[in-house]
Amino acid sequence: MKTNAYAAFQENGKIGPFQIERRTMGRRDVQLEIDYCGVCHTDLHFVNNDWGMTHYPVVPGHEIVGRISAVGKEVDGFKVGQLAAVGCMIDSCGNCHSCESDLEQYCFRGFVGTYNYPTADPGGVTYGGYSKRIVCKEDFILSIPENLKVEGTAPLLCAGITTYSPLKHWGVGPQRKVGIIGLGGLGHMGVKFSHAFGAYTVMITTSPEKGEDAQKLGADEILISTDVRAMARQSGQFDFILNTIPVNHSFEPYLNLLKINGVMCVVGAPEVFRINASQLVFGRKSLTGSLIGGIAETQEMLNFCGERDIVSDVELIRMDEINEAYDRLIKSDVKYRFVIDMNSLN
Amino acid sequence: MKTNAYAAFQENGKIGPFQIERRTMGRRDVQLEIDYCGVCHTDLHFVNNDWGMTHYPVVPGHEIVGRISAVGKEVDGFKVGQLAAVGCMIDSCGNCHSCESDLEQYCFRGFVGTYNYPTADPGGVTYGGYSKRIVCKEDFILSIPENLKVEGTAPLLCAGITTYSPLKHWGVGPQRKVGIIGLGGLGHMGVKFSHAFGAYTVMITTSPEKGEDAQKLGADEILISTDVRAMARQSGQFDFILNTIPVNHSFEPYLNLLKINGVMCVVGAPEVFRINASQLVFGRKSLTGSLIGGIAETQEMLNFCGERDIVSDVELIRMDEINEAYDRLIKSDVKYRFVIDMNSLN
Repeated sequence: MKTNAYAAFQENGKIGPFQIERRTMGRRDVQLEIDYCGVCHTDLHFVNNDWGMTHYPVVPGHEIVGRISAVGKEVDGFKVGQLAAVGCMIDSCGNCHSCESDLEQYCFRGFVGTYNYPTADPGGVTYGGYSKRIVCKEDFILSIPENLKVEGTAPLLCAGITTYSPLKHWGVGPQRKVGIIGLGGLGHMGVKFSHAFGAYTVMITTSPEKGEDAQKLGADEILISTDVRAMARQSGQFDFILNTIPVNHSFEPYLNLLKINGVMCVVGAPEVFRINASQLVFGRKSLTGSLIGGIAETQEMLNFCGERDIVSDVELIRMDEINEAYDRLIKSDVKYRFVIDMNSLN
Repeated sequence: MKTNAYAAFQENGKIGPFQIERRTMGRRDVQLEIDYCGVCHTDLHFVNNDWGMTHYPVVPGHEIVGRISAVGKEVDGFKVGQLAAVGCMIDSCGNCHSCESDLEQYCFRGFVGTYNYPTADPGGVTYGGYSKRIVCKEDFILSIPENLKVEGTAPLLCAGITTYSPLKHWGVGPQRKVGIIGLGGLGHMGVKFSHAFGAYTVMITTSPEKGEDAQKLGADEILISTDVRAMARQSGQFDFILNTIPVNHSFEPYLNLLKINGVMCVVGAPEVFRINASQLVFGRKSLTGSLIGGIAETQEMLNFCGERDIVSDVELIRMDEINEAYDRLIKSDVKYRFVIDMNSLN
C-alpha cells in the first residue's frame, strides 16, 4: 500500500517528498496512521550519512505516535482507534539471551531499526516515521496513555527511554545525587525522570542561561561545568551522572564529580574518548553506556509517564519545515525536541 | 630505634644499604621483625621516580610479613610472637565516609602509604619493608594464618588483595565466565582467586607458552589475545574481565569479549586509554577500576587463603640481589613474584 513520506535522496541534499510502499498487513501486524513524529539527532546523522551506512532514499523518524487503523487477525493486544506508538526498533531475533531477557536493543543478531535497515518489505530497507502510515509487528507496538498531550509523547520513544532506562538500571532514586550533563532532547528528559524518581537532580551545563529552564524541568541545582571552582566544590559528590553530550569532550572533569563507587553513563552519540584509568582506579568508579531500552521497559516508561503526567517539551513543526529544523538542530536551537505534525503532509 | 634497610638514593641509581630510624613505640603500635618482603612493580616505579613523586632516599616494600616483637600498652588484638603483616597502607584519616565504610584505600584525605609518604616519624617520609623492622599502628596490622608457607603470603598484601577485592566486589563465582588478562604478579593471583571462587576462569595472554602454567594455577582455558579467530569465537561471552596489564594497550579487543552488562576492571598501573564509547553503549558494558582493598577485606582475604591454602608462587631472593631482580622484573622474568628473604640483610 502506497503512502506519502519525506526522504533524503543523497548526501548533503535536502529532504523532500517521496512515495513509499508499506508492506501488506500480516496476521500479527498493526497499522498506524501517524499523527506525530519526533526529530532525533540520529535522523540528521542518517540524512547526512555521517556514519557511512545510509541507504538512499532514507525516510527517517523513530519517535512515531498515531492511531491504529487496522490490526491483523491474530493481534490480541491492540484495537482499531487506540493511540499507539513505534520507537527505534521494529523487530529482533526473539530467540537470543538478550531478546529472552526483554533487552531486544542488545539482540545478538542486531535488532531491526525502524528506518534504514535491510528488510524483505518493499523498498528493501525499513522506512521510518516521516510518513503518513506504518505497518509493524504487534510485538513492537507500544500503547500510549490517553491522558497525555499527544505530540509530547513522540520523543518519549527515543529521548525518553534512552534516559529512563539507565536511570532505572543504576538505581536512581531518593537519597541519590544525580547529574545530568547537557540540556537537549535527551538531557531535558533525564532531568524530568531523575526528579520524578526522587533523586537530588543537578543539571550540569556550559550555559548559565539554561539554569531557569532546568529548574522548571525539575532540577534542584545547576552546575556550570566551565566554572572551575564550582566543579571543584562538587568533586566526589555524585552517585550517578548521565552524560548526554553528543560530541567529543573530556571526561576528566565529570569523573572527578563522582563519589567512590560512582557511575557515569554515556548515552550521547558514540565517539572515541581518552580517559585516565587512574580516575577509575582511585575510587572504584565506573564508566558505562546504555542504548534506548527494551520493548517491555519502554511500555513501563510510557505507563509511568501517564501516571506522572510526564511528556517532552516540544516545538511542533510542519513536514515542509524539516530542512529548517535540521539547520536549527545543529545549533541546538530547540526547546527541546522538534516534533512533526504529520497531518501537515498530504 | 635504628634499623638496617635498603634504599634508592637517586633517580636511575642502584638500590643499596641504608640505615633508618623507626619511630618509638606508641601505646597502640605494633613492632614487627620483618622476615619477608615482596617486590611489587610499584617499588621499581618509585625507585626510578617514574611518577615524579619520589622522595629520596626511598625504602620500598609494601608486602611485609614477620613476627611481632613488641606491642604497645593499649594493643589488644595482637601478641608478641604472632605472625603478622603490613600491606600498602599504614594509616588513614579514620573519619571520612570511606574510612567508616572499611574502604581506607579510598580515604578522602588520602591514605598514608607504607613508603614515600609524608609522616611526622623520623626521616619525614614513611620507609617500607626492605628493612629489618617496622613499627605500625595496630589498626593497620594484619594477622597471617600460621598454616601457610610464609614467604608466599607476602605478595598477598598487594598482588593478592588487588585481585581478590574486585573479583569479590563484582560477584565472581559459579556460573560466571571470568577472564584474567596478563599472567604476572597480579594475574597469577587473579587466576587463583577466580578459580577458588568457582568461576569458569580463562587466562587471557599474548604468550602461548604460559598456557601450561596457567592451567596449573587453576585456569580452565587459555585464550591467546593475538589469535584474532580465537578472540572472535569468544566475543560476547565474558561476565567479568580483570585487566592486570601494567602498560598502555588497546581496550577494544577485550571489551568485545564482554557479555551484555559485562564489566572490565582495570588494576594495572594507571595510564591514559582511548576507548570507543559505542563499545560501552552497545551492550551496557562497564569499564571500571579498583585499588588494593580495605584493611577488613585484606584480613578476610588472608583468612580465605588460610582456609583454602592459597599463597603466591614466589622466587626467593637475597636483599643484595634486588638490583638484578629489578632488571628481571622489567622483562617479566619471574614466576610470579620476587620475595626478599629479609634475614639475608644484616
